[in-house]
Amino acid sequence: MTACDDNMCDLECPPAARLCRAQHTSSYFTMTTLKLTYFDFHGGRAEPVRLALHLGGIAFEDHRFAGTDFPAIRKTTPLGQVPVLEINGVKVTQSDAILRYAGKRAGLYPTDEFQALLCDEVLAGLEDAGLQVGKSFGLTGDALKVARTELVNGPLPKYLGWLQHQLQAHGGSYFADGRLTIADLKALVFVRNLTSGQMEHVPKDLVERLAPAVHAHAQRIAETTGVAQYYAGFKA
Amino acid sequence: MTACDDNMCDLECPPAARLCRAQHTSSYFTMTTLKLTYFDFHGGRAEPVRLALHLGGIAFEDHRFAGTDFPAIRKTTPLGQVPVLEINGVKVTQSDAILRYAGKRAGLYPTDEFQALLCDEVLAGLEDAGLQVGKSFGLTGDALKVARTELVNGPLPKYLGWLQHQLQAHGGSYFADGRLTIADLKALVFVRNLTSGQMEHVPKDLVERLAPAVHAHAQRIAETTGVAQYYAGFKA
Repeated sequence: MTACDDNMCDLECPPAARLCRAQHTSSYFTMTTLKLTYFDFHGGRAEPVRLALHLGGIAFEDHRFAGTDFPAIRKTTPLGQVPVLEINGVKVTQSDAILRYAGKRAGLYPTDEFQALLCDEVLAGLEDAGLQVGKSFGLTGDALKVARTELVNGPLPKYLGWLQHQLQAHGGSYFADGRLTIADLKALVFVRNLTSGQMEHVPKDLVERLAPAVHAHAQRIAETTGVAQYYAGFKA
Repeated sequence: MTACDDNMCDLECPPAARLCRAQHTSSYFTMTTLKLTYFDFHGGRAEPVRLALHLGGIAFEDHRFAGTDFPAIRKTTPLGQVPVLEINGVKVTQSDAILRYAGKRAGLYPTDEFQALLCDEVLAGLEDAGLQVGKSFGLTGDALKVARTELVNGPLPKYLGWLQHQLQAHGGSYFADGRLTIADLKALVFVRNLTSGQMEHVPKDLVERLAPAVHAHAQRIAETTGVAQYYAGFKA
């Protein structure tokens, strides 16, 4: 990344781009303040956004709240949802939309249209997979066991197999663009949840058994300097 | 839109952009063949893609199949889903990912990051709303009536009200970028389905009553020259 020629621009530009001001737009020429509101844990739909902003060195207010505060918080958010990103006070919802914005700001989203499509395809596939996982949230006892068993026997093999195919079909190391993008960050958060041991009735080694390349990818992304530093910061 | 300076480039560039070859990438320098596979009707998740490609003057094979052929078709598609876009033979799924790609190719997607975020937010919100509507598909009799009544009393007012807010908060005429984007096309397809009279137990005037600005927006987008011409072509 090289600094933009334009002194009024506060963003970095891709190499060889050297964009003239005519191509930049209002959002570049004003300092943006970002506030991200989400549950206080290292996961879920806001976690890839936090990672992307951190990796891009983009300052943001990381507003985390306890689960018990959600009923009050959701009264203040569009569609009653989180995460919400406030950009100069404008509240925006929809996690993949927010993640794509963060990815562009952080230089972690492909500029090539076809590579961006592959990146978006993985984001949306992970969102669908997450919806399947989410169906079992809030259940207990036998109902939880039945739902999780169905998950382990149906949707998870399907989506993990697909992710492995995407990874292997498009270079092996990353999901798109031959480099780290927001698709890799979202995949990391998804896999880490499944392998955390906190998903009752989901074997910790499921990902490694069904999609070893996806498991290895998540391990490698977790060890990426910026990602490892991010989590180390919480232990300090 | 002005032609790109680069003779090898087959795409149009935004005004004042005049991108140098260094900024273009592989997908620009090869002719792409596009094949879109979806059900044979004027609606659903592929319809905004068809509209965007048509408006952008981008040639594509519009592969439509009958519902009875879906069991056979889905055996050949990633994740068993449609729409699928084949780009030079590579099959890609996820309708919003495909629509965003088509929008970029057609010049119907914002280049400004914040405006792109607003566009993406509407796409994702419409996808969520569509999931709510889809829950009632396949039901019959009393079960259909119960599901549709719940839809009319809950999710539809919520999403229509939100769409109206988005429209009015961001200029009134379009959902993002002060011009026609893929968000407007997806909203048109959503509203047209609700007002078609083919959604049993959903009053045809629901959108007009609950979100008159959204209703007026859909009418205006439908009357846009390129959109009107597209549908007129099927009647000729």
